[in-house]
Amino acid sequence: MTGYNRIALLTDFGVSSPYVGQIRLSLAESLPGIPVIDLISDLPAFRSDLAAYLLPALIRDMPRGTLYLAVVDPGVGGNRLAIALEADGNLFIGPDNGLLAMVFRHALSSSVQRIDWRPETMSPSFHGRDLFAPVAVAMTLGCPLDMTPMDFADLQGEVWPEDIPMVIYKDTFGNLITGLRAAILQSSDLVCVKGRRLHRVRTFNEVPVGTAFWYENAFGLVELAVNQGSAAHELGIQVGDEISLIPSLKFCPGVD
Amino acid sequence: MTGYNRIALLTDFGVSSPYVGQIRLSLAESLPGIPVIDLISDLPAFRSDLAAYLLPALIRDMPRGTLYLAVVDPGVGGNRLAIALEADGNLFIGPDNGLLAMVFRHALSSSVQRIDWRPETMSPSFHGRDLFAPVAVAMTLGCPLDMTPMDFADLQGEVWPEDIPMVIYKDTFGNLITGLRAAILQSSDLVCVKGRRLHRVRTFNEVPVGTAFWYENAFGLVELAVNQGSAAHELGIQVGDEISLIPSLKFCPGVD
Amino acid sequence: MTGYNRIALLTDFGVSSPYVGQIRLSLAESLPGIPVIDLISDLPAFRSDLAAYLLPALIRDMPRGTLYLAVVDPGVGGNRLAIALEADGNLFIGPDNGLLAMVFRHALSSSVQRIDWRPETMSPSFHGRDLFAPVAVAMTLGCPLDMTPMDFADLQGEVWPEDIPMVIYKDTFGNLITGLRAAILQSSDLVCVKGRRLHRVRTFNEVPVGTAFWYENAFGLVELAVNQGSAAHELGIQVGDEISLIPSLKFCPGVD
Repeated sequence: MTGYNRIALLTDFGVSSPYVGQIRLSLAESLPGIPVIDLISDLPAFRSDLAAYLLPALIRDMPRGTLYLAVVDPGVGGNRLAIALEADGNLFIGPDNGLLAMVFRHALSSSVQRIDWRPETMSPSFHGRDLFAPVAVAMTLGCPLDMTPMDFADLQGEVWPEDIPMVIYKDTFGNLITGLRAAILQSSDLVCVKGRRLHRVRTFNEVPVGTAFWYENAFGLVELAVNQGSAAHELGIQVGDEISLIPSLKFCPGVD
Repeated sequence: MTGYNRIALLTDFGVSSPYVGQIRLSLAESLPGIPVIDLISDLPAFRSDLAAYLLPALIRDMPRGTLYLAVVDPGVGGNRLAIALEADGNLFIGPDNGLLAMVFRHALSSSVQRIDWRPETMSPSFHGRDLFAPVAVAMTLGCPLDMTPMDFADLQGEVWPEDIPMVIYKDTFGNLITGLRAAILQSSDLVCVKGRRLHRVRTFNEVPVGTAFWYENAFGLVELAVNQGSAAHELGIQVGDEISLIPSLKFCPGVD
Repeated sequence: MTGYNRIALLTDFGVSSPYVGQIRLSLAESLPGIPVIDLISDLPAFRSDLAAYLLPALIRDMPRGTLYLAVVDPGVGGNRLAIALEADGNLFIGPDNGLLAMVFRHALSSSVQRIDWRPETMSPSFHGRDLFAPVAVAMTLGCPLDMTPMDFADLQGEVWPEDIPMVIYKDTFGNLITGLRAAILQSSDLVCVKGRRLHRVRTFNEVPVGTAFWYENAFGLVELAVNQGSAAHELGIQVGDEISLIPSLKFCPGVD
C-alpha cells in the first residue's frame, strides 16, 4: 500500500447510470477492503472548465490520503493525455483537460506525471472504467506503472484564472455554486445577477423563507441561494451563466 | 465500539449532490471498516414535519444496532438543538426539529440527550458534515462527548399526532406514501383524494395495468399507487397534499 | 463462503428512493465485510423484457465471482417464480419473468434452480428486500436453501430473440442504448431512426459537437449518441421505441 486509504469518485456520469457502478465493481475485485465513495457524480457534463473550480473546494475539508478518480472527459478516445497528480498528500487520476488545473494551482506541494501505461484492451469511450480505474488500483497497491514526469506548464488549464464569476454547479435544492472563492470578497460585496442584487448572509435561516442571498458555502465558494427555495428557479439562471460583483461602498452604508 | 455496527444516512440532501459524499468520505477516515449506507437521500426537502412520519416506517424492519444520521435541517446554523436519541437498540443523531419525533413516540424504550459538544470549526450551513458526522464517529467508537440528558416533553414535535392524513413522500415510480399507518385502517376503508375513491388491494398485480388503488406498503404505511403507472401523475397530487378516509359501511357492501 | 466475493444490485427501484437502501442495510447486517455495489438502479421500470438485453452487456467485462441481485418485478406478490441462475462463475437471483433470459442464453455454462424457500413474513410488494436479499445472504454464506433444479426450457423469455432493434435504456447524457449487439453489425451499416440515418463512429470526439451517430458502446451494444449533446432530445425517441438497420451497400460507397 502507498498510503492511499480510500478512493473517491468525481465524475459527470450521473447518479442514474451504470458507469459509476461498473467502476466500483471493477475496483471491488482488486481492492475489496478499500472504501470507495461517490463524492460527486453530477459534475457539469462535458465542462471540465467549470468542474475544475469545484474540485479544490470539494476536497478542501476532506481527509488526506485519498485517491481521487476524477472524470469529466469529453475528449475520451482522442489524443488528450492521462495524468496522475500528487497534491498535498492526495492523488488525483484523470484526463489532462483542465479538470485538475485548480487542484494543482492551489496545492502547496505537488507533482504530476503523464500516464503512459495502457491496458491490453480499452473501450474508446469509457476510460474511467478501462484506464483510470486500473491505474487507481495499481497506485493504491503500489504497483509500478509506466509514467513520465511532466512540467506543470505543459498541463491544460495552466493559464486559467484562479476564480471565475460564473455559476459552476446547481445542487438538488437549486442552490447555485459559483467559481468564486468567498475569501476574495468583502462581506459587504453584493452579487449581481440578471439585475438582481444579492446581499451576503451567514446561513439560510437568517432571511425570511423565499428570500435570495449569497453566502460562503461549506466548500468556501460564493453560493447563491434562497431560504427553503430554489435559487435556480427564482433567479432564472443556470450552470454556465455569468454573475458580477458590486464592491461594497464604504461610505454608503445604506446600500449594504 | 459501542454496539453500533453500521451507519445509515437519512437526508434531504438529494442523490445528485456532493453533500452525502462528503459525509461518507469524512466517516471513511475514522471508521474505514464500518458499512455506511445511504438509506434515503430525498426525504421531503426542508419538511422535518413530514419526514418525521417516514422515519419509523423506514426503520421498522431494518436490523438493530444501527446508527442513523438523520438530517432534514432548514434551521441549520440557528438555535435549534442537536440531539442523540437511543431507541430500541438503535441510535439517532440529528437536529431537534421534530424529525425524530415519531421515532421516539413509537419506541418501546428510549432516552435522549442534547449534544453540547461542538467542533473547533463548523460551517454554519452544513452541520451534517461538521457536527453530526463527527458525533456519529465518536459515538460509534465509544468516545465520550459533552451531552446533557433531556426530557422527551422538551423535544420539538412532542405534541404532533401519531398519524397524519397527508402525502409525505413520492417515490421514483410516482407512488405516494402517506403519513397513515395501515394498521389503523380497516381493509375495507376507502381513501379519498381529489374526488377519487381508492380501494385497498394487497399488491400491484391484483388490479389491471393503469388502475389506482391504496395498499399497505412494505414499510407499513398507506400508499397510493397505480399498477405500472404513476399515482402522482394519475391523481394529480403531490407531497404535502391531504387525503381523507371513508370508513367502510358495514351494511353497504356495494360501496366496497 | 461459496466463492461469491461481492454483491451487485441491478434494479428499477430508482436512485432516489429508499428501496435500494433498505436492501443494502439488510445485507450489511449479515454480510458486513462483503462489498455491495449498486451497478444500476434505473433499469427500465416494469420492463423485464427490455432490461433482459442490458444485463449480459452490463456484466460482460465485470469481475467473475459476483452475486447479482436483479429485480425488475412488476409481478411481485403474484405467482411468478423466483430463480437462482449460475452462469459462468456468477450467480443471479431474481424473478422468473425473462429478466435473466439473455444472461443464460449467452452463458457458456449455467444451471438454474427454482427458489422454493420463503421467509416467515414477507411483504407482498417488496420481494427484493424480503425474499431475494435473504436468499443472497444464504447463498453467499453457503447455507442450504430449499431449491429445485429447473430446465431452461421452462424459464420465461426462453423463446425471445437474441437481439432486439429497440431502445432499451437512456443514460444521464441522453445516450440511447439499443438491444443490438454491435458485433452482429457491419461497421458500414446505418442505423435508421425516425427518418434519420446515423453512421457509425468509434468514439464521441470524432464528430463535431452536436452531431448524432451510432457506435459500439463500452458494453458491446449499439448506442445512439450526440457529441456533447442528448440523442434522446435530438432524435426525439425514448426507451421502447424501435430502430431499423440499413445494411451497407458494398458497391455504393457514397452511401457510407
